[in-house]
Amino acid sequence: MPVSIPRTLSWIGDLPGKLRMIDQTRLPAEFLEIDCETVEDVWEAIKSLRVRGAPAIGVSAAYGTVIGVQGEIASSREQFDQKLSAVTDYLASSRPTAVNLFWALERMKQVASSFADAAPEVVAARLLAEARSIDQEDRNMCTAIGQHGLSLMPDEGGVLTHCNAGGLATAGDGTALSVLFAAAAAGKKLHVFADETRPLLQGARLTSWELQQRGVPVTVICDSMAALVMRQKKVQAVITGADRIAANGDAANKVGTYSIAVLAKAHGIPFYVAAPSSTFDRSLPTGDGIPIEERSRDEISHGFGRQTVPDGVDVWNPAFDVTPAELINAIITERGVIEPVTAEAVAAMIGS
Amino acid sequence: MPVSIPRTLSWIGDLPGKLRMIDQTRLPAEFLEIDCETVEDVWEAIKSLRVRGAPAIGVSAAYGTVIGVQGEIASSREQFDQKLSAVTDYLASSRPTAVNLFWALERMKQVASSFADAAPEVVAARLLAEARSIDQEDRNMCTAIGQHGLSLMPDEGGVLTHCNAGGLATAGDGTALSVLFAAAAAGKKLHVFADETRPLLQGARLTSWELQQRGVPVTVICDSMAALVMRQKKVQAVITGADRIAANGDAANKVGTYSIAVLAKAHGIPFYVAAPSSTFDRSLPTGDGIPIEERSRDEISHGFGRQTVPDGVDVWNPAFDVTPAELINAIITERGVIEPVTAEAVAAMIGS
Repeated sequence: MPVSIPRTLSWIGDLPGKLRMIDQTRLPAEFLEIDCETVEDVWEAIKSLRVRGAPAIGVSAAYGTVIGVQGEIASSREQFDQKLSAVTDYLASSRPTAVNLFWALERMKQVASSFADAAPEVVAARLLAEARSIDQEDRNMCTAIGQHGLSLMPDEGGVLTHCNAGGLATAGDGTALSVLFAAAAAGKKLHVFADETRPLLQGARLTSWELQQRGVPVTVICDSMAALVMRQKKVQAVITGADRIAANGDAANKVGTYSIAVLAKAHGIPFYVAAPSSTFDRSLPTGDGIPIEERSRDEISHGFGRQTVPDGVDVWNPAFDVTPAELINAIITERGVIEPVTAEAVAAMIGS
Repeated sequence: MPVSIPRTLSWIGDLPGKLRMIDQTRLPAEFLEIDCETVEDVWEAIKSLRVRGAPAIGVSAAYGTVIGVQGEIASSREQFDQKLSAVTDYLASSRPTAVNLFWALERMKQVASSFADAAPEVVAARLLAEARSIDQEDRNMCTAIGQHGLSLMPDEGGVLTHCNAGGLATAGDGTALSVLFAAAAAGKKLHVFADETRPLLQGARLTSWELQQRGVPVTVICDSMAALVMRQKKVQAVITGADRIAANGDAANKVGTYSIAVLAKAHGIPFYVAAPSSTFDRSLPTGDGIPIEERSRDEISHGFGRQTVPDGVDVWNPAFDVTPAELINAIITERGVIEPVTAEAVAAMIGS
């Protein structure tokens, strides 16, 4: 029986409370939990990837909103609302690509709006309840994705994944990794190949750690080796998470995902995306409209604590890429599996 | 007009002389030249990758042989020959898998054999002349590859390369990079995208440095970003070197090359290989017979001084992959361009 891993996110206390999280930048060398007690702490944790993964960012932003306003319960309602607006705007500026961030913040704002006449103390309690709901829904979502996806996994064989779409990216068991955990729990004999995922090495550091914690066999490779793994028939499926999915199924995810989707197609290997329905951005007809965050040069040029690119040499560091729907065999959501991936099928599952 | 970069290898003096080289382990943080004055210095430089790249290793071994025997010119011929034998055996032990190393040492020994009755002083002079020939032939090879390849490059646009097939791997301008240098010198306006090339980052550390030195615009990307660069039409061609090419044109090169060849094909971008005729192994009908060296776990798990993979997690680290001939639009050699890449075309250019 797999053991459960430490929780990625936990709310400590009631009101006031604080958000405890695993500092993912320290893994795998060190397991360290940090407590966010101010909204600046939460913003910094999201910005610097101490917490990452779209669902986990959403849950963090929800709790971060509570942290940001919990000192205002003795204020006037007007002051409270001004603070809430400032806090949510501030948190929204932490990671521009993560749609779950905006989605979670929107839910929090709507709670406040729907209690327009309540005292700040009451609203704060409702906001905490909403954050807890988002948290619990996320756990339930992970479990459901695992159950919906497990039949797509081979009974025996290799599966490639990229970045970390695991429990560390959510409040629960993860998205793509939840499918793998569910498949392993159902007795399937899987061997996972984890792309190390440059520049920040979430695959090497986090995915392999989670799989190891749960007793699922895993081999770490460099991103450039995925094609060779496919050619040697070491994997029979590819599964990743997503950060944002357009109405037609085009999916933004960690840079390098598009690469392995093209490679999977060239090798006749199915490519799956696992993501909650909250990842869909129905305002975007296609992935062309998804903004791609470009991150700092240092992540590539000094990524390992040592300089690896000469001073003055240009570096390009897009954090995401967009995989077109036609390269995705199925999208596994908590509501069910979208297959084939078309605008109509997305609308039928998610709404339009 | 591009400036020339410091020479990878230079013979300083006559007899006695010494071998000056760029210490490539210090790049890009530091530009340092070291002088090898003993055969032990040369052995250590090859062993510890201060000099790397098959052609450059061959040239270093040839000069290293001269360094090893130049103190024996007052000895008897018998003593001189004993020393020569000991020196070449010793140098051969520095990188036991490097074919050019043995090839260069064999040429040096044959020179001594063909002057069987000459005095040590005369033989030493002939050995230095032979080392200079190997050096010069390598420079000529690089120049010829550049000239043959330049017409394949776009007049204006982007070119992607992987690993380091540059001057640092040869005594001259390199192979793939020689083509880029020649194209730039001919007035083509190229922008090079250099894959950083995990695990050892030769693209980030060495290729970008060479291009910077020569004034060719370059952007370093992670290997996983190559597909996105192609999709965004930032590159119009891909060019790499090769370590070994089978009789049908299947080409082994740094791991990740196969990946970008598949991606180039999927994006309708031509994929070129630049390599001297000595890279062809006509004893192998196809690339299936090329052994793939697997290197140590540490290169991935502790790549640059920091642990990035948890203890106990499996790592796979193949150093090379094989790109099938059908994915290669042309192979550029010092004799001319093989295009299309077929066994017949290889035989016509290289022999069979």
